[in-house]
Amino acid sequence: MTGWLCIVGLGPGDSALVTPEVSAVLASASDVVGYIPYVARIAPRQGLTLHPSDNRVEMDRARAALEMAAAGKKVVVVSSGDPGVFAMASAVFEALEGQVQWQALDIRVLPGITAMLAASAKAGAPLGHDFCVVNLSDNLKPVALIEARVRAAAGADFALAFYNPRSASRPETFGRILTVLRQVCEPERLIIFARAVSTPNEQIVTVALVDASPEMADMRTVVIVGNSATRRVGRFVYTPRSVLPVTA
Amino acid sequence: MTGWLCIVGLGPGDSALVTPEVSAVLASASDVVGYIPYVARIAPRQGLTLHPSDNRVEMDRARAALEMAAAGKKVVVVSSGDPGVFAMASAVFEALEGQVQWQALDIRVLPGITAMLAASAKAGAPLGHDFCVVNLSDNLKPVALIEARVRAAAGADFALAFYNPRSASRPETFGRILTVLRQVCEPERLIIFARAVSTPNEQIVTVALVDASPEMADMRTVVIVGNSATRRVGRFVYTPRSVLPVTA
Repeated sequence: MTGWLCIVGLGPGDSALVTPEVSAVLASASDVVGYIPYVARIAPRQGLTLHPSDNRVEMDRARAALEMAAAGKKVVVVSSGDPGVFAMASAVFEALEGQVQWQALDIRVLPGITAMLAASAKAGAPLGHDFCVVNLSDNLKPVALIEARVRAAAGADFALAFYNPRSASRPETFGRILTVLRQVCEPERLIIFARAVSTPNEQIVTVALVDASPEMADMRTVVIVGNSATRRVGRFVYTPRSVLPVTA
Repeated sequence: MTGWLCIVGLGPGDSALVTPEVSAVLASASDVVGYIPYVARIAPRQGLTLHPSDNRVEMDRARAALEMAAAGKKVVVVSSGDPGVFAMASAVFEALEGQVQWQALDIRVLPGITAMLAASAKAGAPLGHDFCVVNLSDNLKPVALIEARVRAAAGADFALAFYNPRSASRPETFGRILTVLRQVCEPERLIIFARAVSTPNEQIVTVALVDASPEMADMRTVVIVGNSATRRVGRFVYTPRSVLPVTA
């Protein structure tokens, strides 16, 4: 029996956003590995073993998945959104470092609908021009680096998407980022808080930067900051394709 | 009859990357509007009228779609990839400016797998840390702004994804961007040229920045530039999650 490992994205929550490619590998898997709430999205069936694990054990999880694939299992590592955006794909490749026997395995990454694109679609098209994507979690990088990147990106008038803006263990980071944004951007700059996108608890709120507060975000929120041209039209928020003024 | 308008992403090419949500609206549409090669991906059927149009007529296409929806048609505007990333969603919202009668229409944006995420998955996980996304087309913005943004993003050690890197009408822009990158990044920086991802003509090539040349890209290519930590492991390219050194 030849094992394989697929690192897949389940999209933001709605099963109608799971690609057929991902559904097909889940249907042929023997083992599913991932963070508890993501594994909970997989329907149990005969012949499929579910391996839910807690947050912040990404490296253990990646090694366990590789070991199972090496032993002949058909293993799917699940992430929400896209597996390559602040999710399990990089962790699996880190686990391959120095492990030549694992590097020869059949390993594939299957993309998914990442949260910022689902959020952008619900709001309109705030990422319709150049944009930057920043993980605000400071587990794996210093807050000073996050601040410097946000300052550079906003200074160059990119729109911004923030993942993991706020957690109970480090509630202050997002407040510092809002301070940076207020130093660089005008008070009217539009900022979108998109929580639990594509789930029954979905909530999309757009405010001016001057009215934004850290409490508007939690770990299930993706935050999108427009560029200087981002605007409302009717109930939508969008960023024009051109840097020239919009003519109606 | 109540019309509606859905602006959808077909993903990069493979039908296994079209979300069920998008397939469902296509199945209930009366009219499909879009650029010729994207409309060509829609199977003809009774009751469905296809409206292919040429490139660079995005505003005419958006207005035509809105007119049809206002007349009671069930209209799908198709883009490749995600409709909100350098695609039709912003054009439709631009067409809504000043058109209050159209703003009340049932308009939805449905996300898709954008090219950079499909390309990243094929290569490994080069976008596993903070990254910026830049449209290199200078149809709607000056090349100097593109250069300034690339300089700012690379200077802050973001990974980068470039859409529309090169066309026959402006072959020199991408060469100028490579020059900017060589001024900011080390010669060994990894750069991925992902052409026609998820199609039979797919080609993924990774080289060091010093070996990159403008001819490696065309309009069907997405270019991904790693950050300073992006590395190879086995046949994969990935960006570590942490800014601290990788320990095997």
